[in-house]
Amino acid sequence: MDSSEVTLLQFAPFESRVDTGFWHKLGSYKLNVLKLDEDAQVIHGYYRNDNAEALSCGFNVDYEAFNSKLNQHPNHFYCTGHLFVKNTVETFKDCDKLELLNRAGIQLWEDIKSGRSIENPYLLTQFLALTFTDLKKYQYYYWFAFPVVKPVEDFRATPSKPIDSLLSNAQIESLLSEYVTVFKNLGMPFFLLKKIDGQSVKLGCLKEWGDFFDEVEIPTVVMCDPSTLHTNPGWPLRNLLILIGTHWKKSGDRVQIICLRDKTREGARSISHSITFTVFIPKILNKLQDIPAFIGWEKNKRQKLGPRMINLSSSLDPTKLSESAVDLNLKLMRWRLMPSLDLEKIAQTKCLLLGAGTLGCNVARCLMGWGIRNISFIDNGKVSYSNPVRQTLYYFDDSIGGGRPKAETASLRLKQINPSINSTGYSISIPMPGHSVSPQDNNVKQDIEKLEQLISCHDAIFLLMDTRESRWLPTVIAKAKNKVIVINAALGFDTFLVMRHGANKGDHSRQQFAVDDSQFEDSSAIIPGADLGCYFCNDVVAPGNSTYDRTLDQQCTVSRPGVSMIASALAVELLISVLQHPFGQYAPAETGIAHPDVSSSSLSPLGLVPHQILESYLQDGFSFLLKAFNSPTYLEDLTGLTKMHEECRTDDIWDLSDAEEEITRQVED
Amino acid sequence: MDSSEVTLLQFAPFESRVDTGFWHKLGSYKLNVLKLDEDAQVIHGYYRNDNAEALSCGFNVDYEAFNSKLNQHPNHFYCTGHLFVKNTVETFKDCDKLELLNRAGIQLWEDIKSGRSIENPYLLTQFLALTFTDLKKYQYYYWFAFPVVKPVEDFRATPSKPIDSLLSNAQIESLLSEYVTVFKNLGMPFFLLKKIDGQSVKLGCLKEWGDFFDEVEIPTVVMCDPSTLHTNPGWPLRNLLILIGTHWKKSGDRVQIICLRDKTREGARSISHSITFTVFIPKILNKLQDIPAFIGWEKNKRQKLGPRMINLSSSLDPTKLSESAVDLNLKLMRWRLMPSLDLEKIAQTKCLLLGAGTLGCNVARCLMGWGIRNISFIDNGKVSYSNPVRQTLYYFDDSIGGGRPKAETASLRLKQINPSINSTGYSISIPMPGHSVSPQDNNVKQDIEKLEQLISCHDAIFLLMDTRESRWLPTVIAKAKNKVIVINAALGFDTFLVMRHGANKGDHSRQQFAVDDSQFEDSSAIIPGADLGCYFCNDVVAPGNSTYDRTLDQQCTVSRPGVSMIASALAVELLISVLQHPFGQYAPAETGIAHPDVSSSSLSPLGLVPHQILESYLQDGFSFLLKAFNSPTYLEDLTGLTKMHEECRTDDIWDLSDAEEEITRQVED
Repeated sequence: MDSSEVTLLQFAPFESRVDTGFWHKLGSYKLNVLKLDEDAQVIHGYYRNDNAEALSCGFNVDYEAFNSKLNQHPNHFYCTGHLFVKNTVETFKDCDKLELLNRAGIQLWEDIKSGRSIENPYLLTQFLALTFTDLKKYQYYYWFAFPVVKPVEDFRATPSKPIDSLLSNAQIESLLSEYVTVFKNLGMPFFLLKKIDGQSVKLGCLKEWGDFFDEVEIPTVVMCDPSTLHTNPGWPLRNLLILIGTHWKKSGDRVQIICLRDKTREGARSISHSITFTVFIPKILNKLQDIPAFIGWEKNKRQKLGPRMINLSSSLDPTKLSESAVDLNLKLMRWRLMPSLDLEKIAQTKCLLLGAGTLGCNVARCLMGWGIRNISFIDNGKVSYSNPVRQTLYYFDDSIGGGRPKAETASLRLKQINPSINSTGYSISIPMPGHSVSPQDNNVKQDIEKLEQLISCHDAIFLLMDTRESRWLPTVIAKAKNKVIVINAALGFDTFLVMRHGANKGDHSRQQFAVDDSQFEDSSAIIPGADLGCYFCNDVVAPGNSTYDRTLDQQCTVSRPGVSMIASALAVELLISVLQHPFGQYAPAETGIAHPDVSSSSLSPLGLVPHQILESYLQDGFSFLLKAFNSPTYLEDLTGLTKMHEECRTDDIWDLSDAEEEITRQVED
Repeated sequence: MDSSEVTLLQFAPFESRVDTGFWHKLGSYKLNVLKLDEDAQVIHGYYRNDNAEALSCGFNVDYEAFNSKLNQHPNHFYCTGHLFVKNTVETFKDCDKLELLNRAGIQLWEDIKSGRSIENPYLLTQFLALTFTDLKKYQYYYWFAFPVVKPVEDFRATPSKPIDSLLSNAQIESLLSEYVTVFKNLGMPFFLLKKIDGQSVKLGCLKEWGDFFDEVEIPTVVMCDPSTLHTNPGWPLRNLLILIGTHWKKSGDRVQIICLRDKTREGARSISHSITFTVFIPKILNKLQDIPAFIGWEKNKRQKLGPRMINLSSSLDPTKLSESAVDLNLKLMRWRLMPSLDLEKIAQTKCLLLGAGTLGCNVARCLMGWGIRNISFIDNGKVSYSNPVRQTLYYFDDSIGGGRPKAETASLRLKQINPSINSTGYSISIPMPGHSVSPQDNNVKQDIEKLEQLISCHDAIFLLMDTRESRWLPTVIAKAKNKVIVINAALGFDTFLVMRHGANKGDHSRQQFAVDDSQFEDSSAIIPGADLGCYFCNDVVAPGNSTYDRTLDQQCTVSRPGVSMIASALAVELLISVLQHPFGQYAPAETGIAHPDVSSSSLSPLGLVPHQILESYLQDGFSFLLKAFNSPTYLEDLTGLTKMHEECRTDDIWDLSDAEEEITRQVED
């Protein structure tokens, strides 16, 4: 060998190739698992030795990176890495990269010295990934390092030659065959090679070195090579040479290296484009006890040492982006403020909003803010000109020409705000006590059936209507159903009411949700969820036609505009609080003041729930409801309320009394 | 005269013709003036005697109805009426129409008997208008009555004849000429006529009756006739005949009536289509002391006695409808709840919202609810995917492709909600302390100038940004301006801050807005508006870059969704309360607790306002601001705060330190 031919050996560095799938996994992992944790996370990446010629020496990290059981693909060489997810761009920037690399390098050096890398050659090819994820902007900053020992002398080698300069074609076939059958399933990146005869070769693991080679011969070592350059081997060879120089060879010794490059051409695997070098082992350290230097931070696309950034926002499906963005704000709550927050439970809660006016619109918006995905509206009104400035789901255009139906329009708007929302609007009238109904009126019967069905298939209903009596029927139906949470909101001028109705005792044993009195100083201040009353409890007047004979300012809810927002927000936050309570709707109420009756409310003469109403509804159904709608006094009779208010029947606005018309007709000429 | 020719005389009844303009006037009058008042209101209407032949006997009420000074148009005969505006459809319906008519009739009868109707013949043709206005639906229910005395005998007359059967053409010309010259400007509906010779006639007022006619002749009386029927006179003749029968003629006496009908044909007035009857005065009462019966309620289009209804919503300009509908809810507040509410002052207040995020959107919506017409936004952000579910002016579509600019989009949405809104969005960056600015940066200088200018031309500014330091510059600028109210809102997770900043003492004498201590039990609990602090008062850390080195959950405002709605609503209601206070922004704050310093706050060492900041800004302007933006410690130095927090300068994220790169370069092969 002509020593003048020996030149500096340069290695093709890895170029990190991070799949979009990895960034999505990382975003989700950061948001849901890591949160503020900046500790190193173990991930996996791989290089391959069957890269196409034009490709650089890629190092791949994809959506499987967080899986510890890796799919062992032939020609994929999996390596372990440490992922650092920084919380801020500043800590990412200010992080001491030399120190990080040195820490990984020292571990590498320990693994080399101790021989652990002989047992597990993948320890020679580890990586670091320093990241910062801007989850709001879908920008991912990252910087990979592939730590290698920097020996005190340069690597030197003879120029590369084709593999067939070293091995006969038969030997090459033998190498491939041995490699495929013996090493395929191990995915071994490095191995030893010995010619047996002109036809065949024998392969061995690194740990067999001592027995494998004769003392005198130049050992031949094969590395599965990610490089496609004709003149340069890939990065993994560096630490392999250091390992050889540390354990088996001394500075200046020669090693024959085969850079094994695989390729499937017309269905057949080929390694004939592999190359080979004779490499001179460099001096690794000046003094035996020294710690070597380490290098390995990747250059970015500007060929500078620095991080890379990828912005995924434009490449993602906007609907999916929206969905994950909506979750983002919510999931951030769990990082620090409410780690136990059960967002999935909230998201799955199906909400039925009765009324799509100021309260309905604001409640729906606030529910969406909490990530609730199922929101239905019931309202038989149409958008009027005065609505859009206060009813936050409507526009001026919705009020032209008689107005669009509120329920359907509100539902459409929710989907325009968040395409992932599942929302339907129902233009149903809610029959009301004091508003007459004919027993033959099939529409009313159908409306009631639809209302019952809708209440049954939702988890929470909100009473957000503008009259007292329209809340009555849903209150009764909901109380008769199990598992429906009822939240009620009503506005005054600068006052409001937000309350939850008492839960149905139903088939839930009292004991299950019994209140542990001992945790409260004053146990009489606690009311179990099933003992809470409803909107009509304690009323001395049954619900009737409250718009009858009311002036305009009494008919419209004349209200300071801010009141609806406040009440809507509190109504939603109340639902969320109930959902987060371990007892759900059976969560006890803390009143802060002593209620002597409540601890034994079932013994109380009236109780907190109008049981007689509930029984009649359960027993007589529609015929009971008809009486309630048509007879102003029926409910008061039924419930035993004695203070009756005389209310007149509604006459047709167009007609005078017969007597009056007759008189006038008589006197007219 | 052949008595067999005498037949029942029927009168063409009035048909009320109410101009759309009247309903608008009425709606506005009801809303702004009448409110709940149901008392009779005097209005004016008119009939004309130049109706086209096909037209019924119209009685007109138009937008001038509430004006007492009436435009005296020839051929318009103005009458006074009483308008009743009922508050509810029920009181409208249940109102006793017979009683109402009788009351008017008795007055009419008194006017006839007393002779007041002779002096003022218009008293014979009064009217009633019973109305109910559904201002929300633009539906107007109305029912007119034209009260007349119903004599105990029927009116009888000879069949009608053309006027030229009674008068020669010359006499007709003479009548017209006299009528035009003598009576035109009086608009007299009835008058006396006497033939002087074959060529001419003489006219007289009703009150001249005694001297005008001979005892023996059949008196001729002219009525300006709204009827166009060939066989029937109009309604005003009825009470005229009763007047004649009461004062000058007895039952069975004959009176010659000329129904004067006017017409302008080819530029010339003509009365030749007038008709004439010989009418027999009926017996009015059975007994002298009786009170006659009265009739006069109008039939509706269904030819039944009953009200009419007009729905104007479809005929109105939707934008105008929207405008008035928005005002409706607000004006209703003044009917009962807040009669002194100055809505005009609120409507005229120009609001500048700094920040168009969750707070900005909700604040703008709430301001619109209060009828505020001028709302500007400043925000340099773009709509991101997570925004629409919480930022209530944006849709999913706004966040696609990098996002639409928030300020402009928010502004556009306001106009889509209420076309009357005057709104502009400005994508301006607000320079912040701790966020470096180059002195050569003209953009920043322009942004500051624009910000100063915008603050100057608004009455109230809202600080609704998501960082502490972005509030600093607007706080300083606004404090330096007179007459700018500053409302500040900021969110925590389940907390919020809503405050108003102290007013500029400016050129307002302290005395003018001095607090009258005597009205408060504890005067030290009152802080004059000009002595209130700002967001930065009492802080021990100057505003700096608060997003620097913050994790995602610290950078985003992680907040319960309801909190923004509550804070936004309270911020707006706070502004409204300040606007309604007689002192405006100088309104004192009631703290409810004693503050020993505040009554002498100008003597307090720090005061409640950082005066040193204000002075530097007023003195040094932009150069002062540059120092504040660029030097983290400048503000703390300036304000004498001694607790300095070491903050590092922002390095370029892309660059390692030189040393680090050099090391890495050296060691790389």
